Amino acid sequence: MDKESYIFNKFKNSLNGDDGAVVGKCVYSKDLFVEGVHFRREWMSLTQIATKSMLVNISDAIAMNAVPKYALLGVSLPKDISVGEIDELTNGFLKIAREYGVQIIGGDTISDEKIVISITIISKTKNPIYRKGASNGDLLAFTGNLGDVKKEFEILENGGKISNDSKFYIPNLKDKFFYKVAKFINAAMDISDGLSKDLSRLLKVNSLGFKPLLKLSKDELCSGEEYEILFAFKPKFKDKILKIACKTNTKITIFGQCVELDENTKFINKCKEHHF
Amino acid sequence: MDKESYIFNKFKNSLNGDDGAVVGKCVYSKDLFVEGVHFRREWMSLTQIATKSMLVNISDAIAMNAVPKYALLGVSLPKDISVGEIDELTNGFLKIAREYGVQIIGGDTISDEKIVISITIISKTKNPIYRKGASNGDLLAFTGNLGDVKKEFEILENGGKISNDSKFYIPNLKDKFFYKVAKFINAAMDISDGLSKDLSRLLKVNSLGFKPLLKLSKDELCSGEEYEILFAFKPKFKDKILKIACKTNTKITIFGQCVELDENTKFINKCKEHHF
Repeated sequence: MDKESYIFNKFKNSLNGDDGAVVGKCVYSKDLFVEGVHFRREWMSLTQIATKSMLVNISDAIAMNAVPKYALLGVSLPKDISVGEIDELTNGFLKIAREYGVQIIGGDTISDEKIVISITIISKTKNPIYRKGASNGDLLAFTGNLGDVKKEFEILENGGKISNDSKFYIPNLKDKFFYKVAKFINAAMDISDGLSKDLSRLLKVNSLGFKPLLKLSKDELCSGEEYEILFAFKPKFKDKILKIACKTNTKITIFGQCVELDENTKFINKCKEHHF
Repeated sequence: MDKESYIFNKFKNSLNGDDGAVVGKCVYSKDLFVEGVHFRREWMSLTQIATKSMLVNISDAIAMNAVPKYALLGVSLPKDISVGEIDELTNGFLKIAREYGVQIIGGDTISDEKIVISITIISKTKNPIYRKGASNGDLLAFTGNLGDVKKEFEILENGGKISNDSKFYIPNLKDKFFYKVAKFINAAMDISDGLSKDLSRLLKVNSLGFKPLLKLSKDELCSGEEYEILFAFKPKFKDKILKIACKTNTKITIFGQCVELDENTKFINKCKEHHF
């Protein structure tokens, strides 16, 4: 049983179920980033931990076509953390905040056994893009390359090392591209649990089936924490979107099409699930 | 060294340092509520844990004269939690959300070893009240009775039991009183770390000294997690405030006065500190 879905069904209302909740022109997104669940200390420096925790939260905002403005940080730190280590961590938060024009406006700090980071990002948008909104016939695409994070993760799990600029450490957000194409997009979400799992969510919320246009590898389908964007758009906007992708130097892959839902077109996620 | 202050000084800007951060008409507050730090499972039912975690966050909003509207929940739950236990927890969140007219609009759930609850409350106000704003001559008061939570906490720590309606379980928020008196209040904050510690913060941010008007007991001064409100106001509003207190059936205690800061009037917190 998927306990995460169970819990969120209990809170179900018109505002949740997306990467962020839209209230007026504000979008609110919140994610936990936890030692032993999302990362291990021996894999990442404190600066890398802070950097990634900010980026994965900002990713939610971008996928909704919202510009991040403010952040609230809740941080639990081990009792024995040194001032130098606190500096490393706060420098990571501040670096990304500066890069994206985000102001850290408050939060809470406690002392406990391990690092838990809870970030709330407050973003602004005039045209939010939801998971819901795709239509029969829409093309489906994703940004960037998928699969590397899975391989990087496997190397780390086997005690190996990966490059400091690998995507596992620094998700490569596609804000410049996505803000420009947003007006042509019907539905979108960031790819955090793997294309296959996230595609199944997007199709389900739109009650649509799937027609593949490309054969994707298991690595492409099942690689989590990619923080690329999965999006749906009308075929008539394909050229405009490709042009913007070219101008912003952003790779996109059109891999499928939304079709009417029936027993043959129903998309089923076959990747192993990591949650709960 | 106070690592919490050290961290938040690193993020210092015009918006933080209060119970909540004010942006336009919105107030954002965020607190962590963690098993083993703020509560133990054997002390509280899951419903009580959820209830208290919501109330302590709503308390921040009320002390700023803001009306809570939306909540984002980040919840880490033990892997072996049952559906019945999830129901207990979600019922607690929903009960308080309903009581205060708060909509739960999203969040994040993960599976880990213990319960970590991170709540962001989004509130609205036309007249935010800050910690800063008190003047020389202002009277200082607190709502309710202080001291009981310290005693209840000691009973629990010694393996005893406390009543289900004790303040340790259900903070008794003073929203009805405080929204009505807010226009007469110069500065306020909720009492989470004990009157003495929180008074020292309020006076410091206003560069003011303290003149006691009453002798308070150590229990009253040093009891944390009371979630009563500490507030400062001009003496000319005393009668109006007392009248509203009477009408809303709210006990208030005027215990001191803000005076010019010098070495004799500087207020020094003598209670044991619990943080870090």
